[in-house]
Amino acid sequence: MAPIRRLVLDVLKPHDPNVVTFTTQLGELDGIDAATATVIEVDENVKTLRVTLEGSELDLEAVRAEIEDLSASVHSIDQVACGSRTVDDPLLGS
Amino acid sequence: MAPIRRLVLDVLKPHDPNVVTFTTQLGELDGIDAATATVIEVDENVKTLRVTLEGSELDLEAVRAEIEDLSASVHSIDQVACGSRTVDDPLLGS
Amino acid sequence: MAPIRRLVLDVLKPHDPNVVTFTTQLGELDGIDAATATVIEVDENVKTLRVTLEGSELDLEAVRAEIEDLSASVHSIDQVACGSRTVDDPLLGS
Amino acid sequence: MAPIRRLVLDVLKPHDPNVVTFTTQLGELDGIDAATATVIEVDENVKTLRVTLEGSELDLEAVRAEIEDLSASVHSIDQVACGSRTVDDPLLGS
Amino acid sequence: MAPIRRLVLDVLKPHDPNVVTFTTQLGELDGIDAATATVIEVDENVKTLRVTLEGSELDLEAVRAEIEDLSASVHSIDQVACGSRTVDDPLLGS
Amino acid sequence: MAPIRRLVLDVLKPHDPNVVTFTTQLGELDGIDAATATVIEVDENVKTLRVTLEGSELDLEAVRAEIEDLSASVHSIDQVACGSRTVDDPLLGS
Amino acid sequence: MAPIRRLVLDVLKPHDPNVVTFTTQLGELDGIDAATATVIEVDENVKTLRVTLEGSELDLEAVRAEIEDLSASVHSIDQVACGSRTVDDPLLGS
Repeated sequence: MAPIRRLVLDVLKPHDPNVVTFTTQLGELDGIDAATATVIEVDENVKTLRVTLEGSELDLEAVRAEIEDLSASVHSIDQVACGSRTVDDPLLGS
Repeated sequence: MAPIRRLVLDVLKPHDPNVVTFTTQLGELDGIDAATATVIEVDENVKTLRVTLEGSELDLEAVRAEIEDLSASVHSIDQVACGSRTVDDPLLGS
Repeated sequence: MAPIRRLVLDVLKPHDPNVVTFTTQLGELDGIDAATATVIEVDENVKTLRVTLEGSELDLEAVRAEIEDLSASVHSIDQVACGSRTVDDPLLGS
Repeated sequence: MAPIRRLVLDVLKPHDPNVVTFTTQLGELDGIDAATATVIEVDENVKTLRVTLEGSELDLEAVRAEIEDLSASVHSIDQVACGSRTVDDPLLGS
Repeated sequence: MAPIRRLVLDVLKPHDPNVVTFTTQLGELDGIDAATATVIEVDENVKTLRVTLEGSELDLEAVRAEIEDLSASVHSIDQVACGSRTVDDPLLGS
Repeated sequence: MAPIRRLVLDVLKPHDPNVVTFTTQLGELDGIDAATATVIEVDENVKTLRVTLEGSELDLEAVRAEIEDLSASVHSIDQVACGSRTVDDPLLGS
Repeated sequence: MAPIRRLVLDVLKPHDPNVVTFTTQLGELDGIDAATATVIEVDENVKTLRVTLEGSELDLEAVRAEIEDLSASVHSIDQVACGSRTVDDPLLGS
């Protein structure tokens, strides 16, 4: 299968661990060059994060396992890019 | 005929296979350099994806067959670019 | 006359041939380097496409004849650029 | 006087000659490197075009004469840029 | 004093001289590399222009005198940039 | 853990020390290449700042301690980027 | 302390001295490479300016003293950037 180059995920995370620990742990996984987490919404017990991961070959199951290990869960997968390069959607203005 | 360099498709996909499997399988097709799928809408039984494919020579029928093989269907073709290079619409602000 | 470098057209096309066949045939014409068609509106019997063509020297009559050959018609010409280079409208934000 | 490098004009044009003939004729004038015409409004007898011309030294009177020769008229001059280079308005976001 | 590199002015101008004559005369002044005038509003007797001037060392009094010589007047000074380079306002999105 | 390359923080700060002293002190911390603070809201006793820090390896606890040392507090962590490079969220248009 | 590379200030200025004199005087200060003032609001006795200053090492107190010397006052400090380079806020779209 074509290597995954970018994943954009919606993640639900309890307040602990904090978003810095969460992101740096995620960024440690094999094949990840860059990990960015943006806090989108804050509720009483949970934060919603948009997480963007890029690398030469991402492994969704390893990402999901690490996220669950960090007491969080993948709420939805918003974007997947794969191939020898990445392409943006020309009509979404991204 | 001029080679197809970019296809932007609206795809309806059941929840299984997930969008990662869907995109990486599609990215495996001959002539595809980059495949990006963005989830636009989530309904009870189906997800609507915007899929952008770029490559040196895309084959719509092979793309459509692979999409159907993955239990999904092409709802509409939103953009086609072909030629020795790609050009964007100067009035759509893309 | 100064060579035409870009044409942006509104085209009405029946559902058959599909937009991929339509665009790749158009992209085959002499002097066309890049052809992009974006579907703007879908009605019962017809699709409205925005078609952007770029090349070293486009021939409107050959373009129009090919479009009619493909059972479609030029509804309007939205933009024409000609000269030794192309310039965008500085006030349209394109 | 400083050489004119860019003119942006509002032009009223009858339906004949068409916008392609109009633009390519205009692009033939001395000192014009690039001419782009965008159709802004279509009325019963007339089209409103935004015309952007760039070159090393544009001559407004020659441009106006050619436009009238093509049965059209300059409705307004929207922007003029002159000098050894062009500058955009930093507050218009162009 | 630090040299003025850019001036953005609101200018009120009678219909005569026209905006092309106005801009090219202004562009002739010492130290001006580029002059762009955009017509913002047209009233019965007067046009409002946004005028952007850039150069190695602009002289406001010479600019103002030339504008008055052309029967126009500086309504307001909207922006001034000076120094060994120019900087844009990071919060205005210019 | 992957090195933190960017932190975006919401900070509550009393009026004293002022934002310049606050930012330059923060920028002194080990591993910080650039620190930018933008005032978002001003209340009677407190200012809300958006603080963006970038560097080769940021240390959240050192940042938090320095902020508290400056009589301010981290109200929320809005974004964290880590890895061998930084990636922006393709769907937030940043 | 880390050197200040950029200051964005809201300044209240009487109509005299004018904004050109004001900006060029400010741009004369040691360590300032570029100074841009944009008029945001005009009241009967006062103008509100957004002033952006960049340089290798800005001195707030010298800036403030010069502004007061010019009969104006710093109404607020909107942004401060310091360090060996400048970084923009990724979520403000600047």
